[in-house]
Amino acid sequence: MTEPQSAYTPQHCDGYNGTRGNPVSSNGRLPPGQRSTIPAREGRAVHLNKGDRLFILNEKGHQVCDFFALVHGCPAEMLSMEHTRTALGRVYVGEGDTLVTNRRRPLIEIVEDTSPGVHDILIACCDQPRYAQLGHEGYHDNCADNFRMALQAIGVEPVHVPSPFNIWMNIPVAGDGTFQWTAPTSQAGDHIALEAKETCLCVMSACPQDMTPVNGNDTQPAHLIFWIERPAG
Amino acid sequence: MTEPQSAYTPQHCDGYNGTRGNPVSSNGRLPPGQRSTIPAREGRAVHLNKGDRLFILNEKGHQVCDFFALVHGCPAEMLSMEHTRTALGRVYVGEGDTLVTNRRRPLIEIVEDTSPGVHDILIACCDQPRYAQLGHEGYHDNCADNFRMALQAIGVEPVHVPSPFNIWMNIPVAGDGTFQWTAPTSQAGDHIALEAKETCLCVMSACPQDMTPVNGNDTQPAHLIFWIERPAG
Repeated sequence: MTEPQSAYTPQHCDGYNGTRGNPVSSNGRLPPGQRSTIPAREGRAVHLNKGDRLFILNEKGHQVCDFFALVHGCPAEMLSMEHTRTALGRVYVGEGDTLVTNRRRPLIEIVEDTSPGVHDILIACCDQPRYAQLGHEGYHDNCADNFRMALQAIGVEPVHVPSPFNIWMNIPVAGDGTFQWTAPTSQAGDHIALEAKETCLCVMSACPQDMTPVNGNDTQPAHLIFWIERPAG
Repeated sequence: MTEPQSAYTPQHCDGYNGTRGNPVSSNGRLPPGQRSTIPAREGRAVHLNKGDRLFILNEKGHQVCDFFALVHGCPAEMLSMEHTRTALGRVYVGEGDTLVTNRRRPLIEIVEDTSPGVHDILIACCDQPRYAQLGHEGYHDNCADNFRMALQAIGVEPVHVPSPFNIWMNIPVAGDGTFQWTAPTSQAGDHIALEAKETCLCVMSACPQDMTPVNGNDTQPAHLIFWIERPAG
């Protein structure tokens, strides 16, 4: 037998940052209306009941949020961009669209979006191998590890790092199928609101990409702010 | 606590077909040059050593092959379309392109393609929920279950059902990002050859989609033929 070529597990982080020790609470629950900050380069997990709305505020305007969601109690059923593209018949999403899981169940609806509505559902989240390929030496904060750490901080082990909903990430696809990494079209103070169609865990990462212009032409990662609104009754 | 909403596991099949009991061998190894058939609507797994070339023959011409690959000994490191798109800067692939894993390692190179080169790397593989949404009643053969069964038939448990490399699947993306499900451009007798850049398990599913035209305008699923060529020495 040929020896195994790799010891990769989806739970293992390539390195660590403040994401690991700073969950919003031990189980990811956050009182409605209470604002919380995702520091630049970090991630946070938050629990949503079915019907809750998650608001994400792009205070600086140029910061991408890598967004993930897992069905409550079932980390193997996750928000899936490939199933969402199939459901929508499009490679873009916008206000009014519902994103689905890998079991094709509606999970997240984009109910408000004050930005021009440019988001990405095509590109993998950044990870340590990506930064190594871009020429970075040593550990670089990354959205894959932020996803892992944010979940582990509330006692959940990821079973796979899914392709994210990259909020405000601007990856225009040309007619020949090629695309570029360009600066967001969102502005300071823009927000997006996402409604949970099922009870779920959401993970947001303030993308630490500073080697391409995805977080603005000054490539400086910034913080994000989020809170929950819960329907009455 | 809210009760779990789902009991999904990536190992569980929604139903079964001949894929489960008919592996090419107990460990997926196939002697070089020995032709093997994937019956219509079924899947097969095959082991490739690094450097091996896998030939897939579209004998009828209109049959899509959903293709997956896992690094040998590490089913969590898998061929990843979202990482491949990032590596190529394109939503299409063709002859000469190398597809990478979710750790961004080169895994599969398209070394020969006699077809016009129209393939898909955007769409999720079909599954039981997809056919239910299309209006089918009861179990329908599907590529997700074929992937699971083909691996389980050689003693490997999947940890996730990845987004596939849909060989010969024709999903043209328009300038506005919308796309259509259309018939393959491949012709009877076309083949593709894929070279393993690492030792891996490949899974092929002769897509059983008969409710959209992805397998031709007559929507009749057909068989596929495959074999391995091994470099001398």
